[in-house]
Amino acid sequence: MDEIQKLTALFKEFPGIGERQAKRFVYFVLSKDYDYKERLVNALNAAKESVHQCGECFRFFSGKEDVCFNCKNPQADKTMLLIVERDSDYEAISRSRNYFGKYFVLGGSVPILEKRPEDVVRLRELIKQVENKVAEGLQEIIIACSLTPSGEHTDETVRRILRPIAEKHNLKISSLGRGLSTGTELEYSDNATIKYALESRQ
Amino acid sequence: MDEIQKLTALFKEFPGIGERQAKRFVYFVLSKDYDYKERLVNALNAAKESVHQCGECFRFFSGKEDVCFNCKNPQADKTMLLIVERDSDYEAISRSRNYFGKYFVLGGSVPILEKRPEDVVRLRELIKQVENKVAEGLQEIIIACSLTPSGEHTDETVRRILRPIAEKHNLKISSLGRGLSTGTELEYSDNATIKYALESRQ
Amino acid sequence: MDEIQKLTALFKEFPGIGERQAKRFVYFVLSKDYDYKERLVNALNAAKESVHQCGECFRFFSGKEDVCFNCKNPQADKTMLLIVERDSDYEAISRSRNYFGKYFVLGGSVPILEKRPEDVVRLRELIKQVENKVAEGLQEIIIACSLTPSGEHTDETVRRILRPIAEKHNLKISSLGRGLSTGTELEYSDNATIKYALESRQ
Amino acid sequence: MDEIQKLTALFKEFPGIGERQAKRFVYFVLSKDYDYKERLVNALNAAKESVHQCGECFRFFSGKEDVCFNCKNPQADKTMLLIVERDSDYEAISRSRNYFGKYFVLGGSVPILEKRPEDVVRLRELIKQVENKVAEGLQEIIIACSLTPSGEHTDETVRRILRPIAEKHNLKISSLGRGLSTGTELEYSDNATIKYALESRQ
Repeated sequence: MDEIQKLTALFKEFPGIGERQAKRFVYFVLSKDYDYKERLVNALNAAKESVHQCGECFRFFSGKEDVCFNCKNPQADKTMLLIVERDSDYEAISRSRNYFGKYFVLGGSVPILEKRPEDVVRLRELIKQVENKVAEGLQEIIIACSLTPSGEHTDETVRRILRPIAEKHNLKISSLGRGLSTGTELEYSDNATIKYALESRQ
Repeated sequence: MDEIQKLTALFKEFPGIGERQAKRFVYFVLSKDYDYKERLVNALNAAKESVHQCGECFRFFSGKEDVCFNCKNPQADKTMLLIVERDSDYEAISRSRNYFGKYFVLGGSVPILEKRPEDVVRLRELIKQVENKVAEGLQEIIIACSLTPSGEHTDETVRRILRPIAEKHNLKISSLGRGLSTGTELEYSDNATIKYALESRQ
Repeated sequence: MDEIQKLTALFKEFPGIGERQAKRFVYFVLSKDYDYKERLVNALNAAKESVHQCGECFRFFSGKEDVCFNCKNPQADKTMLLIVERDSDYEAISRSRNYFGKYFVLGGSVPILEKRPEDVVRLRELIKQVENKVAEGLQEIIIACSLTPSGEHTDETVRRILRPIAEKHNLKISSLGRGLSTGTELEYSDNATIKYALESRQ
Repeated sequence: MDEIQKLTALFKEFPGIGERQAKRFVYFVLSKDYDYKERLVNALNAAKESVHQCGECFRFFSGKEDVCFNCKNPQADKTMLLIVERDSDYEAISRSRNYFGKYFVLGGSVPILEKRPEDVVRLRELIKQVENKVAEGLQEIIIACSLTPSGEHTDETVRRILRPIAEKHNLKISSLGRGLSTGTELEYSDNATIKYALESRQ
């Protein structure tokens, strides 16, 4: 396997990238000047060294601290903890500027037939964080999973895992509200969406 | 223009159908046996003659009565009136079996720059129906428009038109709830959807 | 089954049309004025009565004659016969104004595992037409099938069926040339296309 | 700009990659173990150092030599030179195993309104290579561009640039043949494709 094939194989592991696009990436990188390649290598090295996983919310962030800016932020609302599947979900919610509490990133979703969900997402770490945050005033846990089959299964799994500690400490567990999302055409909506949209009418 | 071109031109008016698919429809009809063509002509003639617009909800239905089955139905919940843009929206909600009140079909949506909305959708007829239904116990009007730009504009227009009569008779006006709809991936959601999903969490 | 359902069922048989779009067609027709419905019924009736299949090339055409304009045309090149799968293929070639000989419409393509191809396309009629046209000076038969799996199988089937008569009368049998078609990107081309494009370079 | 944003910006330059997918690539890389990141950096460094552009055909290849394997290959057919727009086009033709002559990679296509095509693709280098190869027995130049607007314009530009040298040395210039490509449906073909497919029938 030569250098072009080795790099192609590594790009092929990128999410959503097949053989052909991986090869195009390789030719793109090769055709760029030395400086771009240098900057890409440096950025990857810097990411390797200076990006850490937050010790509380487990998202990736640039910095040398143990916990990320939001987890350290004294103004964050300590009564709420929002659980997302992935870093990109954290980004979407953070970017929307509608939530100002604490976060927890599970690190993925729970596949429907998974026997040992605690091996694929951070459930043990979640329980530990919830325990810590109860002492700091936690009152509500919001599960913010995608409305896909694996997202719904993740929601159920997290609810089941958290039930004992929630009951013990009288924590409310909620999930994101369902209804019409931007762009939804009524005519093509499924029954569940119509049901929730009617129930949550306002 | 020969017979094939005439029929093509008429099929081209069907929603979403261009020249080529219209032509394919023509060849499809021509290649079917005489019996299919006969049944299609008969069904069109029957539809012309026996399908009427309901005098109350304005949807199309098969029957010779002035009002459709649902409008005549003594068991329908007279305290609620649900307003939709199109017959197909009526179908989607009716099929979902989550709503058992009265309906009203506007006959379309209000384009954003439309100066005279009462000329494109049945706003005058809507006001008349609301007046009639107040006497029969109407308490809530649910506006069920798509979450598209024209749907949102239709929602605003209907609200504005109905405000005086709603205030006079103390009617509640609501719109379908917003949030995550089935299949929504959080990562790709816009800020408005995230905002409503957080607010309507449960 | 009421009138709306009957008409929906008939529209659902249209090529490429599912339940929902069939229903949209029904509501479209219902919402049009009486005149449109009248014209549609008239056009269907006229098509039923005045569109015939040509007795030579078997395409559909408007007219009361036994054979279509092109088959009667004394200026058409009688040395060539072009065989297509469908009426829409005839249209595409005729519209392109690159061929001025005779045509034959098979009426479909031969599925790959079909045991009795003469039951699904007009092979018997084709042999009869070739026999007739030999007397009128036929020299070349062009098979113009799509480059899809079923099109390629149709090409092979027609070649096999015509071989005896072609050998007997010294007729040339050709198929449309292969190569790059408009819009083709070399990078995404398969080996067969590249092979033919190289062979037919000019 | 932090390390995550820097890496996102660099991935965003990859062909066909927008902000969101660039961010997903970053999180993907971050979530992989240290070993993957190490291998990716190593592969990029190795590509920077050991991948060169061939001094004759100008494609990228792994190796320290001045010219690539194919340009050195004594068995390659020296009577033919095939010109492609990009490395990925070279790959497609090489992979198809239908051509065994020499190659030349232009390094892109010529935009339609480009005033100075020699600044965007390697036309000067091409002329020099053709001159060299004439001495080695070159007889035919095959221009293998995509059948896209910019590909057709590149074909015309290369033909114009090569005309003097081709006339002087009596070289044949050809382009890839046009016709139906794999998957083409006759019904949806444009006139030019039908014209070429008829002309190159066989």
